Amino acid sequence: MAVSRQRRVTLASVDSNERLREILDQSAKLFDQRGYDRVSVEDIASASGIRKATLYHYVRSKDDILVLLHQEFMHLVLDAAEAESRQQLDPRSQLVSVMIDILALMKTHRGHVRVFFEHHRDLPTQARKGIRADRDRYEKIVEAIIARGISTGQFRQVDVRLSTLGIFGMCNWAYQWYKPSGPMSPEVIARFFASCIVDGIGKR
Amino acid sequence: MAVSRQRRVTLASVDSNERLREILDQSAKLFDQRGYDRVSVEDIASASGIRKATLYHYVRSKDDILVLLHQEFMHLVLDAAEAESRQQLDPRSQLVSVMIDILALMKTHRGHVRVFFEHHRDLPTQARKGIRADRDRYEKIVEAIIARGISTGQFRQVDVRLSTLGIFGMCNWAYQWYKPSGPMSPEVIARFFASCIVDGIGKR
Repeated sequence: MAVSRQRRVTLASVDSNERLREILDQSAKLFDQRGYDRVSVEDIASASGIRKATLYHYVRSKDDILVLLHQEFMHLVLDAAEAESRQQLDPRSQLVSVMIDILALMKTHRGHVRVFFEHHRDLPTQARKGIRADRDRYEKIVEAIIARGISTGQFRQVDVRLSTLGIFGMCNWAYQWYKPSGPMSPEVIARFFASCIVDGIGKR
Repeated sequence: MAVSRQRRVTLASVDSNERLREILDQSAKLFDQRGYDRVSVEDIASASGIRKATLYHYVRSKDDILVLLHQEFMHLVLDAAEAESRQQLDPRSQLVSVMIDILALMKTHRGHVRVFFEHHRDLPTQARKGIRADRDRYEKIVEAIIARGISTGQFRQVDVRLSTLGIFGMCNWAYQWYKPSGPMSPEVIARFFASCIVDGIGKR
């Protein structure tokens, strides 16, 4: 299924479209390796095993790809977080789940992750607003976990916003150092970070 | 003092050279705002109030500037960490000091910070090795603080490497969200993060 060059391709069309899937995956990989600005549409077409003209049947521009990668990344984390919210776990367990989700992406979607963290400002204005709204929604989910932990007495009376930012920092920063070939799984790392943030590294 | 175009300018010459200082500061600001690849030597010259030909009396290329910004950043954090090591603080206090140092850079050197975190791979090979060695040295200093805390009994028997990466994550990630105009000082944020990581957010 080729998409019209006149309108922006939507995330919904990716799942049912193997070639578009391949274009996105190859783009994520190339952007991760070289940086967004250093990858051309020709590079993406070539890595995807198609001609540039063919690629333009699927996306209008490199910007379209950037937007789709951002949307896909947010979709992944929001879906996971919302599914966990429905499980009604206790706040600590829910926090651990969210941290595992983020760390797992370092293994499964490293290209998406770098693009998401480093190329937000390269998004077209309208798309940037949408992604920012999604990101805010995600942050609110994690803030709500902390707030619930405080109200149930599982957590101390900490600054909800700042502790959320600290937790994101621990997890998100792994995109800078995590090696999928390393000895520890994302889940092991996430559980360790959760124990640091919940129990502290200080001796009780 | 103009530098020869034949050899790479060194960090030592920056302090005594107001124009080079201005070039670096303007570059850091532009790279932060637009991204390294989207800033030209002309842009830097113009922001520094000099002509492009004059800029080439001070640095040989944009790459030279990137290297100097990386070196300067490492110099700042290493100097601070080594000065604190000499103060023989207890491990917890030393950890708090290191965390304050990093957060303070988000206010004083935000351009340097983004360049350092996002453009490591854009460094020329030789320079990249030097910066990596400095970064490893810095990480070792923080790992040593954690190890000492474990041996004095102030900290639990945690994974030293992984807790160091978690601490860096909390602090470094602030480059993504910290606003110098916000209500909290870098020191307040750093102390809060230190209390999260040492005491935990869980109720004891």
